[in-house]
Amino acid sequence: PIYLITPTYARFTQKADMTRLLYTLMHVESLHWIIIEDHDEKTELITKFIERIPTDIQVTHLNMKTPPMDKLASDDPSWLKPRGVQQRNAAIEFLIKHYQESPEGYVYFLDDDNTYDIRIFDEIRKIEEDQVGVWPVGIVGKLRYEGPVCSNGEVTSWFTAWKPDRPFPIDMAGFAVRLENFLGSPEARFKQRVPRGYQESHILTELGLDRTNAVGLANNCRDVLVWHTRTEKPRMDAEEKLMKATGAASDLSIEV
Amino acid sequence: PIYLITPTYARFTQKADMTRLLYTLMHVESLHWIIIEDHDEKTELITKFIERIPTDIQVTHLNMKTPPMDKLASDDPSWLKPRGVQQRNAAIEFLIKHYQESPEGYVYFLDDDNTYDIRIFDEIRKIEEDQVGVWPVGIVGKLRYEGPVCSNGEVTSWFTAWKPDRPFPIDMAGFAVRLENFLGSPEARFKQRVPRGYQESHILTELGLDRTNAVGLANNCRDVLVWHTRTEKPRMDAEEKLMKATGAASDLSIEV
Ligand SMILES: O=c1ccn([C@@H]2O[C@H](COP(=O)(O)OP(=O)(O)O)[C@@H](O)[C@H]2O)c(=O)[nH]1
Ligand SMILES: O=c1ccn([C@@H]2O[C@H](COP(=O)(O)OP(=O)(O)O)[C@@H](O)[C@H]2O)c(=O)[nH]1
Ligand SMILES: [Mn+2]
Ligand SMILES: [Mn+2]
Repeated sequence: PIYLITPTYARFTQKADMTRLLYTLMHVESLHWIIIEDHDEKTELITKFIERIPTDIQVTHLNMKTPPMDKLASDDPSWLKPRGVQQRNAAIEFLIKHYQESPEGYVYFLDDDNTYDIRIFDEIRKIEEDQVGVWPVGIVGKLRYEGPVCSNGEVTSWFTAWKPDRPFPIDMAGFAVRLENFLGSPEARFKQRVPRGYQESHILTELGLDRTNAVGLANNCRDVLVWHTRTEKPRMDAEEKLMKATGAASDLSIEV
Repeated sequence: PIYLITPTYARFTQKADMTRLLYTLMHVESLHWIIIEDHDEKTELITKFIERIPTDIQVTHLNMKTPPMDKLASDDPSWLKPRGVQQRNAAIEFLIKHYQESPEGYVYFLDDDNTYDIRIFDEIRKIEEDQVGVWPVGIVGKLRYEGPVCSNGEVTSWFTAWKPDRPFPIDMAGFAVRLENFLGSPEARFKQRVPRGYQESHILTELGLDRTNAVGLANNCRDVLVWHTRTEKPRMDAEEKLMKATGAASDLSIEV
């Protein structure tokens, strides 16, 4: 299967984002979706959401709370701290613990508010031993797209406007590897404190991979099959005003 | 079928938004998706997108450009002018022209960046003659949700913080009617110049419907099956800087 690793956290748009992501995944065969909540326990919302996922998608439900000192505050700029680090590590630990004896598969980090064309999953299944499959990601890095430039599947350069000298100047949505790589480097983890933009480079380096291992997928890196969409944070002014004025606002027993 | 009317306009996130919306619709039977581009001709991007839609979704591709004076500028506040008005009217005209002899079906206005739980389409098919089906819409109106409050399918009040005295204080995603209503009131159209928040009330009033025709769906208006998500507008600073510095930025032959 493809092991999809998705950190997720409570916010007004969480259920909407997870719902439309699920509808995408329901068109794909042989997936194992590891959902890690950034919470000190498994929430009712995500537990109920998972209960409704058709059984042909295998699901593992984990939780791992980001310690307060590492958590991005809602008014911090989004680049200040990396997000999802400890959640992705919890999933990696789960894989290492359970799949030593069945190392077949692929690992892809799937954020809950990105957009995926289902053809990306066919691309991932082309990745061979000790390769890191790479492809462009749409609307990221203040560019239309960012990612490898390829010729005959070989990466000839990397199109990015941000620290082009990083070992892998790519987004979390722009690469995948085989599960064997994680099993073979069981200490490889994401790290909260690496320079901004270096999470992807850090984990791939810990897996013993460098640019020579990169193979360009998605029609020679010419098809954008993944977009780094972000869902606008909704304002709740009216909710707050009503609460102040009348002591009650929307019915909290209605789940959103 | 359910006739879904979706205005759409060119922007960096258009293909991503349309892609994930399509994956939602691909789980639903008996749909006819009317896609109206806000453009003076049919674009290549949307034409190619539509070519890839599986044939069990019927698709009609229209275009209708919003005149410059009615168009929201990209730095206008989003409430200044209504969006999608003339596009929705083009779709209504298409329905009136083609379905007088086969008036079976439902009409629902589906925005391209909202999120839909597929169970909403089962609810829509419950709507009977001269009823307007209504349900809550998540994260809209600066509230967790906005919409009817119901008891035994009867609407007893409307939860909103914005002009509660509107004939229908609801969002575009919060109602549907039968096609017969449009065929029976062939002059009913949206209007560019109605007070802010009155589009929904205006069209329903033109269809000869008032609050007494409302029937509360979605588990007695207790399930949020539609969310007014908005996709963040991406910044393209790096694209612009590169262009200035080097005269070239991303490869424009790569479609995003
Ligand atoms: O406090 C947080 C913030 C984010 N995330 C998750 O980490 C991933 C990346 O976060 P986000 O989408 O906010 O990052 P960005 O789009 O800005 O890169 C997403 O799956 C989020 O749900 C998380 O688990 N905890
Ligand atoms: O200039 C425009 C702006 C919007 N829309 C479409 O009209 C609908 C509502 O627009 P939007 O989602 O921007 O509105 P909001 O979410 O702010 O209500 C969407 O399907 C858009 O694609 C359009 O056709 N032309
Ligand atoms: Mn994101
Ligand atoms: Mn919208």
